[in-house]
Amino acid sequence: MQLTYRTIDLNSDLGESFGAYRLGSDEEIMPYITSANIACGLHAGDPLVMERTVDLALQHGVAIGAHPGFPDLAGFGRRVMQLSADEVETNVLYQLGALYAFVRARGATLAHVKPHGALYNVAAADGRVAAAIAKAVNRFDSQLIVVCFPNSAAADAAQERGLRVAFEGFADRAYNPDGSLVARHLPGAVIHDHALVVTRALRMVREGKVEACDGEDIAMRVDTICVHGDTAGAPRLAAGLRAAFAEAGISVSPFGRR
Amino acid sequence: MQLTYRTIDLNSDLGESFGAYRLGSDEEIMPYITSANIACGLHAGDPLVMERTVDLALQHGVAIGAHPGFPDLAGFGRRVMQLSADEVETNVLYQLGALYAFVRARGATLAHVKPHGALYNVAAADGRVAAAIAKAVNRFDSQLIVVCFPNSAAADAAQERGLRVAFEGFADRAYNPDGSLVARHLPGAVIHDHALVVTRALRMVREGKVEACDGEDIAMRVDTICVHGDTAGAPRLAAGLRAAFAEAGISVSPFGRR
Amino acid sequence: MQLTYRTIDLNSDLGESFGAYRLGSDEEIMPYITSANIACGLHAGDPLVMERTVDLALQHGVAIGAHPGFPDLAGFGRRVMQLSADEVETNVLYQLGALYAFVRARGATLAHVKPHGALYNVAAADGRVAAAIAKAVNRFDSQLIVVCFPNSAAADAAQERGLRVAFEGFADRAYNPDGSLVARHLPGAVIHDHALVVTRALRMVREGKVEACDGEDIAMRVDTICVHGDTAGAPRLAAGLRAAFAEAGISVSPFGRR
Amino acid sequence: MQLTYRTIDLNSDLGESFGAYRLGSDEEIMPYITSANIACGLHAGDPLVMERTVDLALQHGVAIGAHPGFPDLAGFGRRVMQLSADEVETNVLYQLGALYAFVRARGATLAHVKPHGALYNVAAADGRVAAAIAKAVNRFDSQLIVVCFPNSAAADAAQERGLRVAFEGFADRAYNPDGSLVARHLPGAVIHDHALVVTRALRMVREGKVEACDGEDIAMRVDTICVHGDTAGAPRLAAGLRAAFAEAGISVSPFGRR
Repeated sequence: MQLTYRTIDLNSDLGESFGAYRLGSDEEIMPYITSANIACGLHAGDPLVMERTVDLALQHGVAIGAHPGFPDLAGFGRRVMQLSADEVETNVLYQLGALYAFVRARGATLAHVKPHGALYNVAAADGRVAAAIAKAVNRFDSQLIVVCFPNSAAADAAQERGLRVAFEGFADRAYNPDGSLVARHLPGAVIHDHALVVTRALRMVREGKVEACDGEDIAMRVDTICVHGDTAGAPRLAAGLRAAFAEAGISVSPFGRR
Repeated sequence: MQLTYRTIDLNSDLGESFGAYRLGSDEEIMPYITSANIACGLHAGDPLVMERTVDLALQHGVAIGAHPGFPDLAGFGRRVMQLSADEVETNVLYQLGALYAFVRARGATLAHVKPHGALYNVAAADGRVAAAIAKAVNRFDSQLIVVCFPNSAAADAAQERGLRVAFEGFADRAYNPDGSLVARHLPGAVIHDHALVVTRALRMVREGKVEACDGEDIAMRVDTICVHGDTAGAPRLAAGLRAAFAEAGISVSPFGRR
Repeated sequence: MQLTYRTIDLNSDLGESFGAYRLGSDEEIMPYITSANIACGLHAGDPLVMERTVDLALQHGVAIGAHPGFPDLAGFGRRVMQLSADEVETNVLYQLGALYAFVRARGATLAHVKPHGALYNVAAADGRVAAAIAKAVNRFDSQLIVVCFPNSAAADAAQERGLRVAFEGFADRAYNPDGSLVARHLPGAVIHDHALVVTRALRMVREGKVEACDGEDIAMRVDTICVHGDTAGAPRLAAGLRAAFAEAGISVSPFGRR
Repeated sequence: MQLTYRTIDLNSDLGESFGAYRLGSDEEIMPYITSANIACGLHAGDPLVMERTVDLALQHGVAIGAHPGFPDLAGFGRRVMQLSADEVETNVLYQLGALYAFVRARGATLAHVKPHGALYNVAAADGRVAAAIAKAVNRFDSQLIVVCFPNSAAADAAQERGLRVAFEGFADRAYNPDGSLVARHLPGAVIHDHALVVTRALRMVREGKVEACDGEDIAMRVDTICVHGDTAGAPRLAAGLRAAFAEAGISVSPFGRR
């Protein structure tokens, strides 16, 4: 067994509250992660929430990334919208700038970009949308790292433009033999057993492998593990991952600082 | 008669279209103005419109400013909303960043900030709101110039934080003897005679004076004259102002470049 | 001691979730109340939430009312907006119709209207806004009952148009000697002691009185007691009120059915 | 040649302005049409605009229908959104009720429903969405007529639920040999020659036929002809259609009144 990584990043989607509406456990999760993807106001988040979430990330030394989504608050950015490439590009630019304002106002740095929900999923498969996102990121700041699903159109488009990418693994999700995720509505798609999630995360980091839903191992080399912030027990799972990584001698740090 | 200014700026609120909705005559006005205040998506404007308006300004060498407003698209930012100071500050920060994204993506510079509609009016009188705006501007970029009504709370708050301000004159609006504008719904509040508007603009620039509604002159030293983009004949009026300034030997350039 | 009422209504603001955002304890509170004020999509609520909340009310035999607010989702309808009378009237009409659709689709009846948050507060004092609301209600359905603060402009305007009103009491809020509520940000404004809240509710119902913040009794004859759904322990408080009313021989039923 | 119709309806999508944004030529078109499809606030329209458009229709004796769309103001309802069946159903119910409020407030009647833009197009092909719309209409008012593309899933779903349908023809659009419309971005998709549009409309009404893009006639029996309100010259075209129908002895009246 060859170690492929001695270090890993833990990322989480945060800042998804809106007005009077609270969502997620930002305060509880922030201590355990190394990269925060902060919603930018179109699918979730508002200016007050963005400011507070940026401040919370800075308090914990967590790298700050933009988490742009489709302009669909009612659907929380989880409904596919057929936008033109120009609409995708300018909507992403808009959101990058909006979050950047709060980062800049604290003298801090924007480190990465991770599209949200349906935009992330569409960008994984649709080269036109992937290219629009990559173009927006590149135009705004070519040093930003794009968090992508491995072997995706999103990763290809970013790399073609010379952008760095971080491949993301989902330790709490079942994988198909081709490396895609088992659709969320299918049985077994989400793994609720924390011990199993930790084991799968460790294997991704140490071996670059994950067991697919047919029982066979597939390659899964990732730079960051996603901690879903809106699931029950997320802070406890994040703490468990940190403890397991520490015990295994795996350091945890933002992907952009390596 | 002593000349107080040999140079003046002409500003206009632009980029106020939204989706399928066209508003204003941006293409027709841009050739005549020197500073464009571009809507940022909360009271008007959308990401595509912002990109196009920034590009149009750059084509004409027009200085680009953010035009943040209350988050009220249905009311076009013209309805007063009672926001907390934190809400004002973060809403302005959000909008500054959103517009900045399109400016930065073109390698250009954001020059100024002019609040829109009800936010501009409230900031002229309410020190709490004025301070929140000034704080947001200062936190984002202390080199930004704040366009203000003369002798306003907005100007005081900006100057207290060391920000440069540009005083704005309204040549097509009647003034009260105390230097405030005659309320828009009163008779004679808006001056429709282009020749008279040009004459008043010239006096503001050359003499630092304007005739108030009681027939007496009052001091009105301004750095920029507002051209209302959404009124009929606005491009023709802007052209008339440029011609009159040229004939009078008054140069026209962005206030920030002097 | 003369009994002024042998029956009372308990109302609560419900259906205030939105998209992925959950707010309130609708399922827990609905069994204890007799009138539900359901948000209509402009300050809170969405079409799916409205349908579910109407269904939940029907399951529990709870009277259904519309809960229209200012069009300000980010501010949850709690920020004053300066709308014209026509804007208030048409915004209320819009929301009445939107909620009515779900009621009609179940073959049920809309019983009442209670404005939300800042709209309720403004309507209590501003006759222009109060009249606009009353006009909208009257135009839509003159049988609707308007829930109002006692001795308010809202009540006057409704009654002038021949609408029935239900006076609302707040057993968990301190009253000023003039019968207005102590502003929420002042100390003691909200009463957290459930036993005290129950006692105050009983006095309002049986004696038509409440002790004001100066220790003197004031008249407070009300038709309905508000149960704030978004406060901790609200379902328990609602249950406590029901039990106390039952013990005191006070029946609890929707105000519109008496 | 056998006359299939001696009467026809002319419909137009109206009430699509929003806040400060004016769209369409409602005042100019209303005198010539017999059915108005009025936007309901989610893709276009706002409460003030809805009230004014209902009033305008009533002044001209034009039948009033709801024009519900996807909840996407920025995209004007022209971008496909992947909503669940429940989301479609409740969004349509919401919009039916919202428009109904203004109709009811005038003592008038809601006559029909025509989905807008992307919702209309998706419903023509996707039985799941078509069923959700039909269910919403049927639940709200089973007497409402659904305006549908001929031979569409929308028509099938409505008829299966016992709803009456009105088939719609597009005299200014090219048809494929299979009866579908030539996609709008293809050359020749939109017919700008008013005389040709009138001729095609007359053939649809008198012969139940239209010439497809391959030069062959196809059957096209329609109950209503769409007048696109947002195209240049729309009022003139509508007037031309009325004149041609009058000359040909074809009466023009709302489909619901026959």
